[in-house]
Amino acid sequence: MGRGRLITLEGIEGAGKSTLATYLRAQLELRGVAVRLTREPGGTPLAERIRALVLERGEEPVSAEAETLLMFAARRLHVDNLIRPALERGEWILCDRYTDATRAYQGGGRGVADSLIESLATAVHPDVNPDLTLLFDLPVALGLERAAARRGAKDRIGEESVAFFERVRTRYLEVARAEPARVRCVDASQPLDAVKAAASTAVMALLS
Amino acid sequence: MGRGRLITLEGIEGAGKSTLATYLRAQLELRGVAVRLTREPGGTPLAERIRALVLERGEEPVSAEAETLLMFAARRLHVDNLIRPALERGEWILCDRYTDATRAYQGGGRGVADSLIESLATAVHPDVNPDLTLLFDLPVALGLERAAARRGAKDRIGEESVAFFERVRTRYLEVARAEPARVRCVDASQPLDAVKAAASTAVMALLS
Repeated sequence: MGRGRLITLEGIEGAGKSTLATYLRAQLELRGVAVRLTREPGGTPLAERIRALVLERGEEPVSAEAETLLMFAARRLHVDNLIRPALERGEWILCDRYTDATRAYQGGGRGVADSLIESLATAVHPDVNPDLTLLFDLPVALGLERAAARRGAKDRIGEESVAFFERVRTRYLEVARAEPARVRCVDASQPLDAVKAAASTAVMALLS
Repeated sequence: MGRGRLITLEGIEGAGKSTLATYLRAQLELRGVAVRLTREPGGTPLAERIRALVLERGEEPVSAEAETLLMFAARRLHVDNLIRPALERGEWILCDRYTDATRAYQGGGRGVADSLIESLATAVHPDVNPDLTLLFDLPVALGLERAAARRGAKDRIGEESVAFFERVRTRYLEVARAEPARVRCVDASQPLDAVKAAASTAVMALLS
């Protein structure tokens, strides 16, 4: 890892990650930090094309394992071509989803074996792991209600059932419990100002 | 594995795999075997799109590890959506390149760690491994001469150096030595009729 910081933002649909990423960038820039906003799957031109392959309504079925491999292929491109160079330049990265999303969506949601996900995580980014992960947690019904209000056409993930998102949320919370030093759980059902304040406090603690 | 047979064809550029695949299909069909010809990377519409991503001249660098992940993602789609169902229907598959090609090109040629490739092979297709692999071996200079005679625009792999293809050939031969029961090495520098005869003998032995 370089001198920058890798901060990942996680949570189910409607948790407000994008709004919070923009807010946190502004807060960090006010303090003179060079910030790069990015997202997964995607973050580089080729990884964005892989994202499109994964998310589009399929011309053929995509097993959960194939989806997981594509996610990690895109992630490796993202790490090689954006994240690692930016960290080495001293930039801070705010990344909307990273490997915890694979744990939650492909692992919790779709039942991919932990052993596959963890062996891929170790192989694909042994030395590029988040300094801080903000998990924006909220009830699934509230998240989906918010997401529906802004979503246009649904993609493959957006078409999943409530039970799927419950499994995703549960797995996210399990990850947070297992790694309390890295993952800060933020109650995203609070008013936005309170969510912003909690997130900002966690991020600004990395400055000292 | 189902009742069919998975036969993979391997070798460097110019080894004559495509010609031999077509010949072997005809020979098997004469004996009443239902045969499916396919190739990697590719073999399904989505896997072919991944192939295009991997092989095209890049808009951004693709590390050998990212390339390996994409190969295995495409392979999983191919196994899920074509190979396994065809084997279960009792068809025989002639597949132009499979995991040995990843061992040879990404492992031998580009230096990806064996441990990554083998852990992916185990995770991605634990139960779909070749019944027979034909390795068409020939000197690199001869292979490249033949390939140059038919190739149009080069892709990323076609642009590699002679030293690269020497490493690929060496790794292929190492795989053949390590797994003599599965891999039949055929001298592809012989006249085509002799190559066809050797390949056909190996394939027809699976019928009994």
